[in-house]
Amino acid sequence: MKHLLLAAAAASLALPVAAQDPAPIPSPGEIAAAAPASDWIAIAPSDLLVMDLAPDAKGQARRVVIQLMPAPFSQGWIGNIRKLAAAHWWDGTSVNRVQDNYVAQWGDATEKKALPKGLMTVPESEYVVGVDMQSIVGPKGVGHRYAPVPAGKLTDSYARFSGFFEGWQVAGQHEPDDPAFTNKGLLPMLRDLPTVVWPVHCYGMVGVGRNPSPDTGSGAELYTVIGHAPRHLDRNIALIGRVITGIEHLSSLPRGTGALGFYEDEKDRVPITSIRIASELPSADQPRYEYLSNQSDSFARYADARANRRDPFFIKPAGGADICNIPVPVRSAAK
Amino acid sequence: MKHLLLAAAAASLALPVAAQDPAPIPSPGEIAAAAPASDWIAIAPSDLLVMDLAPDAKGQARRVVIQLMPAPFSQGWIGNIRKLAAAHWWDGTSVNRVQDNYVAQWGDATEKKALPKGLMTVPESEYVVGVDMQSIVGPKGVGHRYAPVPAGKLTDSYARFSGFFEGWQVAGQHEPDDPAFTNKGLLPMLRDLPTVVWPVHCYGMVGVGRNPSPDTGSGAELYTVIGHAPRHLDRNIALIGRVITGIEHLSSLPRGTGALGFYEDEKDRVPITSIRIASELPSADQPRYEYLSNQSDSFARYADARANRRDPFFIKPAGGADICNIPVPVRSAAK
Repeated sequence: MKHLLLAAAAASLALPVAAQDPAPIPSPGEIAAAAPASDWIAIAPSDLLVMDLAPDAKGQARRVVIQLMPAPFSQGWIGNIRKLAAAHWWDGTSVNRVQDNYVAQWGDATEKKALPKGLMTVPESEYVVGVDMQSIVGPKGVGHRYAPVPAGKLTDSYARFSGFFEGWQVAGQHEPDDPAFTNKGLLPMLRDLPTVVWPVHCYGMVGVGRNPSPDTGSGAELYTVIGHAPRHLDRNIALIGRVITGIEHLSSLPRGTGALGFYEDEKDRVPITSIRIASELPSADQPRYEYLSNQSDSFARYADARANRRDPFFIKPAGGADICNIPVPVRSAAK
Repeated sequence: MKHLLLAAAAASLALPVAAQDPAPIPSPGEIAAAAPASDWIAIAPSDLLVMDLAPDAKGQARRVVIQLMPAPFSQGWIGNIRKLAAAHWWDGTSVNRVQDNYVAQWGDATEKKALPKGLMTVPESEYVVGVDMQSIVGPKGVGHRYAPVPAGKLTDSYARFSGFFEGWQVAGQHEPDDPAFTNKGLLPMLRDLPTVVWPVHCYGMVGVGRNPSPDTGSGAELYTVIGHAPRHLDRNIALIGRVITGIEHLSSLPRGTGALGFYEDEKDRVPITSIRIASELPSADQPRYEYLSNQSDSFARYADARANRRDPFFIKPAGGADICNIPVPVRSAAK
């Protein structure tokens, strides 16, 4: 028999549900797949950044699609990125750095290419966002904009609490920060305290390369996480979105042998054919995606299942999960 | 200027310490590199598994070295692995599965190759290990065998506590499990309670593929983590070691397009030339490595620095880290 490491998917492949008695507990992926259409939220093409790399050695196309974060997150950098894409600034640049278990980074390797006029200089204060928890948190902590991670052992090693804010994984704390406040204590006790949240460096998140502080980067130099979540970068560098498809075109690239994983031989750099906002592409070429609403019952069941795997193959549910192990389900909405 | 994403290393490359005033706070890597020889513990060649893959497309050698776990962890499976290596069982097998942000898996793709006689069938109870915390925990929780993760926000989303046990990242709980017990509460209060610990699925950890429970796998089918730590697999599948060098030869392989990332075309499989216990190799070909003792002051400073980055580039120390973001430093001890 094939050794099926990947629990849920494997078991469901091996044993069609109909063939089982009793019916197995669904996997997180199965729960998301079964969510009604009304639980899915369309991602506007204007919020998708489409990066086409030069074809691979076999001549196959390599497209990476990045979802940009909504307000109130990182809008200064994202505004710059929209200008850079509109100016076709990245066309002819390249992926210049791939460091194992860390990041793949792209931009102008020559570092001499002039930037478009009118880019913003964004202050470090924009790494976090102040939110009024009362306005976003509803009964049991699930509001129309925020959902906490499932209860249980669920704590965050890097923040007082973590959860999902309008479709994005975030962490946060109350100001002034008080070690006594934890994820579990967040609600309702802390609902009325000044609170800041920030996006977190999970696998596939896209951030803005920068020089030493107080520089915060323009958005012209971007990277994506291709290893274990480097959460120590949270609040130290801007995150602007996440790769929602095609990350394998970056994560499986040869690792650079230079310092920090930069390619030492420029022939090893991977050419970027173009980067566009999807809404600027011909309609037929515009990718369509949607994500599972954090406020849906389906999402609550999905998140609970991620934290407590009870589907076939598993024998001990963990009783918790870190925020980066609960990715927000995204799927193609191609017509 | 080059945008230096990778904080510490980048800054130290850009600004030699001598050129700076005041001297910068060292990065975790710099702290480990400065540790005295007496803080490093040699890894016996008999505990190293050497996997040679067929040369890559450029004809370059691809060697992966795996450190096997010491007793009391997973010795049943590790005994099987020693027998399989001694029988040269893996020679001519292949890497058959590479799933993005999850695992690379190798073994006999035909699933027809006979196993050596005398392999053990290991019970699921071996996924965890009972330990007498009194015997391993010394003052402040740092004993000769165990060191807790640094205090602070440091909690574990998957276990009551986590730390380092004889050079390995582990998590654990007290039996019977009580939600009130946490990492911070571990010492001295819980020192005398029955305790179990288990190895954790961090990046680079190597585990044993298995069929549905109660099968626990023989050790012939192995995988390594190439993405965000899938901690939900802890206590559900056996871990037997960690890749200490050459993981890029697995993590940068093309992702499989079949179910679970299996290669659909057998031509895509990566041939394994040989897998040997290092002590069975000619002396000149035996790799030599050592790891930083968890009980050394250097390690304590290293771990604290991983949880509180204050080296150049960082502006906000996290105040914590998850166990998988505190890898045990391992270095070549080649003469």
